[in-house]
Amino acid sequence: MISFENDYSTGAHPRVLEALAATNLEPAPGYGSDRFCESATARIRAACDDETADVFFLTGGTQTNAVVISALLAGYEGVIAADSGHIAAHEAGAIEATGHKVITLPEHDGKLNATDVEAYLDAFYADASFTHMVFPGMVFIAHPSELGTLYSLAELEALAAVCRRYEIPLYLDGARLAYGLAAPETDVTLPDIARLVDAFYIGGTKCGALCGEAVVFPRGGMPRHFLTHVKQHGALLAKGRLLGVQFDALFTDGLYAEVGQTAMNAAAKLRRVLRDAGCEFFRESPTNQQFIVLENAQAEALAERIRFSTWEKLGDGRTVIRLATSWSTTPDDLAALEEALRAAMR
Amino acid sequence: MISFENDYSTGAHPRVLEALAATNLEPAPGYGSDRFCESATARIRAACDDETADVFFLTGGTQTNAVVISALLAGYEGVIAADSGHIAAHEAGAIEATGHKVITLPEHDGKLNATDVEAYLDAFYADASFTHMVFPGMVFIAHPSELGTLYSLAELEALAAVCRRYEIPLYLDGARLAYGLAAPETDVTLPDIARLVDAFYIGGTKCGALCGEAVVFPRGGMPRHFLTHVKQHGALLAKGRLLGVQFDALFTDGLYAEVGQTAMNAAAKLRRVLRDAGCEFFRESPTNQQFIVLENAQAEALAERIRFSTWEKLGDGRTVIRLATSWSTTPDDLAALEEALRAAMR
Amino acid sequence: MISFENDYSTGAHPRVLEALAATNLEPAPGYGSDRFCESATARIRAACDDETADVFFLTGGTQTNAVVISALLAGYEGVIAADSGHIAAHEAGAIEATGHKVITLPEHDGKLNATDVEAYLDAFYADASFTHMVFPGMVFIAHPSELGTLYSLAELEALAAVCRRYEIPLYLDGARLAYGLAAPETDVTLPDIARLVDAFYIGGTKCGALCGEAVVFPRGGMPRHFLTHVKQHGALLAKGRLLGVQFDALFTDGLYAEVGQTAMNAAAKLRRVLRDAGCEFFRESPTNQQFIVLENAQAEALAERIRFSTWEKLGDGRTVIRLATSWSTTPDDLAALEEALRAAMR
Amino acid sequence: MISFENDYSTGAHPRVLEALAATNLEPAPGYGSDRFCESATARIRAACDDETADVFFLTGGTQTNAVVISALLAGYEGVIAADSGHIAAHEAGAIEATGHKVITLPEHDGKLNATDVEAYLDAFYADASFTHMVFPGMVFIAHPSELGTLYSLAELEALAAVCRRYEIPLYLDGARLAYGLAAPETDVTLPDIARLVDAFYIGGTKCGALCGEAVVFPRGGMPRHFLTHVKQHGALLAKGRLLGVQFDALFTDGLYAEVGQTAMNAAAKLRRVLRDAGCEFFRESPTNQQFIVLENAQAEALAERIRFSTWEKLGDGRTVIRLATSWSTTPDDLAALEEALRAAMR
Repeated sequence: MISFENDYSTGAHPRVLEALAATNLEPAPGYGSDRFCESATARIRAACDDETADVFFLTGGTQTNAVVISALLAGYEGVIAADSGHIAAHEAGAIEATGHKVITLPEHDGKLNATDVEAYLDAFYADASFTHMVFPGMVFIAHPSELGTLYSLAELEALAAVCRRYEIPLYLDGARLAYGLAAPETDVTLPDIARLVDAFYIGGTKCGALCGEAVVFPRGGMPRHFLTHVKQHGALLAKGRLLGVQFDALFTDGLYAEVGQTAMNAAAKLRRVLRDAGCEFFRESPTNQQFIVLENAQAEALAERIRFSTWEKLGDGRTVIRLATSWSTTPDDLAALEEALRAAMR
Repeated sequence: MISFENDYSTGAHPRVLEALAATNLEPAPGYGSDRFCESATARIRAACDDETADVFFLTGGTQTNAVVISALLAGYEGVIAADSGHIAAHEAGAIEATGHKVITLPEHDGKLNATDVEAYLDAFYADASFTHMVFPGMVFIAHPSELGTLYSLAELEALAAVCRRYEIPLYLDGARLAYGLAAPETDVTLPDIARLVDAFYIGGTKCGALCGEAVVFPRGGMPRHFLTHVKQHGALLAKGRLLGVQFDALFTDGLYAEVGQTAMNAAAKLRRVLRDAGCEFFRESPTNQQFIVLENAQAEALAERIRFSTWEKLGDGRTVIRLATSWSTTPDDLAALEEALRAAMR
Repeated sequence: MISFENDYSTGAHPRVLEALAATNLEPAPGYGSDRFCESATARIRAACDDETADVFFLTGGTQTNAVVISALLAGYEGVIAADSGHIAAHEAGAIEATGHKVITLPEHDGKLNATDVEAYLDAFYADASFTHMVFPGMVFIAHPSELGTLYSLAELEALAAVCRRYEIPLYLDGARLAYGLAAPETDVTLPDIARLVDAFYIGGTKCGALCGEAVVFPRGGMPRHFLTHVKQHGALLAKGRLLGVQFDALFTDGLYAEVGQTAMNAAAKLRRVLRDAGCEFFRESPTNQQFIVLENAQAEALAERIRFSTWEKLGDGRTVIRLATSWSTTPDDLAALEEALRAAMR
Repeated sequence: MISFENDYSTGAHPRVLEALAATNLEPAPGYGSDRFCESATARIRAACDDETADVFFLTGGTQTNAVVISALLAGYEGVIAADSGHIAAHEAGAIEATGHKVITLPEHDGKLNATDVEAYLDAFYADASFTHMVFPGMVFIAHPSELGTLYSLAELEALAAVCRRYEIPLYLDGARLAYGLAAPETDVTLPDIARLVDAFYIGGTKCGALCGEAVVFPRGGMPRHFLTHVKQHGALLAKGRLLGVQFDALFTDGLYAEVGQTAMNAAAKLRRVLRDAGCEFFRESPTNQQFIVLENAQAEALAERIRFSTWEKLGDGRTVIRLATSWSTTPDDLAALEEALRAAMR
C-alpha cells in the first residue's frame, strides 16, 4: 500500500546502499575506529564548519537522546524540554530510566521559548528551597520540532544566550535535520547550529540511512570517556563501519542536502494536494510532516488506500492525521494520494 | 591488511546485502511490526522447533544482554555468570547500569559449572542473612563461551536442572551461536537450546549480518510489555525491517548454518596452519576463535602483516593472541597468514 | 526565636522520648525484628482495623516515597501525581533516580481529581502508540496535601474506583496524617484509608517522632522481598528499634491522635490570630499549615521576630508565607506571633 | 536474654540520650542547618585536625556507602573493594542499584592490599580494551574491617599513595571507627585518617548513637550540590538535629573515645573468657568483634542462653560465631557468657 505514514518506512537511499555494497568485503577494525567513520567525521566537520567538532555515531534517536543527555547531566540535574518534546512524551521514559527528570515547559508551535526557559531558571534560583529540587541542567530542543516547525536563527540565538548565561548546555535533536535545513523558510544553517548549541545530532534513520545518527559535540566538547559511556548503555556497535559508511555516503557530493531537498519538494506538492482537496491544516508545518484534520469517516475511507499516522482523536468526530514525505516519495505516490483523498472527502 | 582480528571486521554476507537491496523500496510499518520481522520470526520458530517461541530483534550483543537481563530480573536480584563472562568483564558495566549485580563464579574453560551454581544457590539460602544480600535471580552463559569453548548437552541439561530447581531463568548469549552449532564436536542443536533455556539470542553481528541479534523466549516466555522496555533502553529501531530482512535472509535456505560452516572450515584450516607453524595453543577451542602464545617479538613481527587481537600479556615475554575466522575468511587470507607466521617465527 | 516555620522544628513528643529512655538498655535484635516493632505493628493494625496489614518502618518521607513507589512499579511504569505533589516538585528527583517518570496532572486545591485521572488513563490506552510511552502504573496522593487540604471520603472512593478499574495501586503519602485525621471538617478515618488505598504511610517525623514513617500495605499487600529492596535503597536501619519504640509510643493511649488534636487546636487559634490581624489567606487550609499573603515589607518585618516559611514570591510586591503548628506550639508562641504580626502590619 | 550479637543491640549511650532530651523543645531549622549540626561539625573538624573538612550527617551505614560512593564516581566508574567488603557482600546490591560495579580483589585478613590494588590498576590501563571495561574510580576500605582487623598506618599510607598516583579517591567506611581508634595495637589516629583518605565516615549507629554516621570530606572535598544528591537518595532527614545533637554529644568531653575504650576493655575481657574456655579463634581480631569456632552442638547449647551471630557454617560439623562488645556490655554480661560457655563446652 502507498505509504505517507512516516519518513522511515522504506530502506536506505540507493547511494547509501551502494556504499555499503562497495565496501562490504574490506576488513575494518571495530567500534567506530575504522576509516569510514574517520572519513564521515571529516566530512561532517567540514559541513559544520568546525574542524574541532567531536563526532560519534549511534544507532537510533531515542538511544541518542538518552545516551547524550545522561552523559551531559550531573546526577542532581534534569533536562528542560517542551511538553510536546519527544523525550517528554514518546520515548517510554528513556531519560528517567537513566535517573534524570524531564522538566517540561509549555510548547509554542511545538517549540521551547527562550523567555519561558529564562523565567524558569530565574524562578528556580530565586526559590529558597531550590537545593531540594531537580537542578535544570540542560535544555533540549528538536529542530524540526515534533510538530514539523522550525526555530528561527533569532530563536536559536536567544536560547543559546540563556543557556550560556546559566552555563548549561543546549542540545538539539536533529532526527529530521535534513528537512529543516532544506526548508525554504529557514534562515538556519548547519554551521549556525554547530556554533550555537553544545551538542546535537544529525539524523540518519529518518533522512535516508538504514539506521544511524551522527552526534556532534562542537568545539571538542565530547564528554570524557564517552565511548565507555556509550558501551555501558548498550549503544556501541561492533561493526561501527555500518554507521561510518552510511554517513560518509550521506555527506559525499551533497547527498544529505539532496535527501532533504527531495522530501521538501514532495512536501510542497503534498501541501498543494491537501489544500486543493480542501483539507483543514491542524498546524502550519514548513517541513516534511503535514498535519490535517479529517472527519472520522473521511479518515477511515482514506485508510483503505493510503497508510498514514493517526496523530490525535479530537473527540468531536474528527481526527488529526499526519502525512510525511521522504526521499523515496514518488510522483505516483502523490497522485495516488490525491485520488484517494478526493474519494474519501466526497 | 589481511585480518584475523575478529569475526566482525567485514560487512554482511552477500546474500544478506542482496536481501536488503531487494526489499529496499517496499514501504513497511515501523518498530518491528513489518512482514520481514514476521517472516524471520516464523523461520526462527521453525529452526528452534518451538512454534510458541517469542522472538524480538535487537541491534547488538551488549545491548541485548542488558535489555534481556534487566527485563527478567526483579530489582533485588542479580545474575550469576562465570568471571570470564562478557557481562562481567567486557561490557563496561552495562548490567550494573541497569541496577543489577553480576555475581561471578570461577570459570572452567570459560564455562559455568552446574555444580558450582548449585553450591552457590544452596549456600545462599542456607545463610541466615540472605535477605541482606543480592538474590541470585538468573544464570548467564555464553555458547560458545568467550574462550571459544562449548557446553555439552549434558552440561546444559545440568545447568537447566539447577535453574528449574531454584525457579530462576537460564539465559544463553549466542553472539557466536552459528559457530557453536557448526562445530564438529558439538552434540547441542538449536532445538536443544530452545528446550533447555528460558531466553537466548541468536547472534547476527558476528555471524554474517551488518548488525542484529534475534532474542528468543521459548514457550511464549517474553516478559510483559517487552517492547516498551526495549524502547526505554534505547534499543528499539524505527526501521525494524533492517533486522527483520537480515534474519529472514539468514534463516532462508540454511544461510545461518552455511555461515557457521564456512567459518568452521576456515577454522579447521587455521588450526592446521598454527599447528604446522609450531604454535603453542593457549586454550583448546573447538570453534572459530583460536588462542595461541607467541614470543612478544614474534607477535610484533606478525602484526606487521596480519591484524589480530592481543588477548593477554603473560608478563614473561610472551603474549596470547586471538585469531578468528568468519564467513568471509578466504584461502588467500589463510595462505598469507601461513607465510606471515613462518616469517615471524623464524 | 519563636518558630512557626514547620511542624518538624522541635524534637519528639515527650512521651516518645520517655519510651526511648525506658527501653534504652534492653538488647534487641536488629533490622526491625525486635519486639518494639512487633508491638507497634500490632497497634497500627488495630488502629487501621486490618489485622492482615503489613507494616514496615522507614526513616523519612522522601525515602519512603522513593522506596515504596519503586517497589510497586514495573520498570516500564511511572506514577501519576498532582503537579503540586511533593514527589513531582520537592524531592530532588528521588523518583526519577529510581528510573521512573512522575506523570503530572493539574492540581485542584493541591489535590488530584478522579475525573482527571480517569480521563488520562482512558486517553492513554486509546492512543495507538501507547506502548511507546510510560505506562501509568500507580496513583500518588498526599493527605493532607502539600497545600494543607484534605480529600473527602467521596473523593478517595472515586480515586480508588478508578485505580481498581485499571488495576493499579493507589498510594497515599501521610507525612502529616495526624493533622488530617484530627481536622474537624474531615469525614475520613484511618480505617477508611486502609480500606481504600493499596499502600500508605503514617507520618512520624512531622507528627511527634524524632524521625520515622510507618508504611502500611493493607490486606497483606507488601511487595515480595521488601526488606531486601529497602536495604538496597539504604533505608534499613540497623537499630530498627528506634522506629519501633517511637511508633509503639505514638499508638499507645491515643498519643498519635493527641499529637494531631493539639496541633489542630493550635491551628484554630492561629487562623483566628491571622484573621483578626486582617491577613489575606492564600488558600483555605483545614489543617495545621496556614498560607497567607503579606506585603514584602510586612513579611520582612515579621521575619525579625518569628520564623516562618516563604512559600512563593508573587512578583507584585507580595509574598505568600506558610505558618505551621505542631504538638509543641504553645499559647506563648501564639501570643508572640499575634504581637509580631500586629507590629509588622501596622 | 544476654546479647553479644552485635554492637547495635541496645539504644544510645546515656549521655547521647540526655543531650536529645535537653535540646528537645528548642526549635531549629531543618535539614542539617541547625546549630547542633554546626557545633558537631566544629568538634569533628577539631578531632580530625582539619579545619577545612566538610562534614555531613547521614542515618545509616549502607545508606552512607551508597550515597558517598555514587557522589564520587563518574557514570563509567566502579569502586574497588575487598571481596569480603560490606558493599560487595552484605548490602543487597546498594552500590549496583546506583549503577556502579563493585570490583572485588581478594581480602587479606579482611583487608585490601595496596600491592593488589596497584597491580589491578596497572593491568587495567595496560589492557588494550580498557575502554570497554568499568573504570576503577575509587578504592573502598573498612577500618576496622568486616573481620575486625585494622590497617596499620603504613598500610593506609601505601593505599593512599596508589590512589594519588592514579588520581582516584580513597574512601574509608568507619562504621566501627571508635573501636579501631581505641584498639591498643593501632598506630592510626583520626587525624591520620583525615590526612590520608579523601572521604570517610565516623560511625555512630554502632558506636553509641541511636542512629547516624558523620561523613567527612577532608580538605573541603565535599562533592558539588551534595545536599541535593543526599535528598535525591532519600537520605536527608527533615529533623537533621537528631544527628547533630547526637554527634555533638559524642564529640563532647571525649565521649566517642570513651565509647570505644569501654567496648575495647570489654573486648579484652571477652577474649580472655574465650581463651580460658579453650575456644579456637577463627581470626585474630584486635577490635570489639571476636570470631570463634564451635562444634555445632556447642553453638546450639550456647544459643539457649546467649544471643550471638552465626558467621559461617564450616560444613565439618563446626560453626563460626561472632561475639561483639559495645559501650553497654556489662561485667554481668561477661560473667553470664563465661558460665554459659563452660556449660556449652562441657
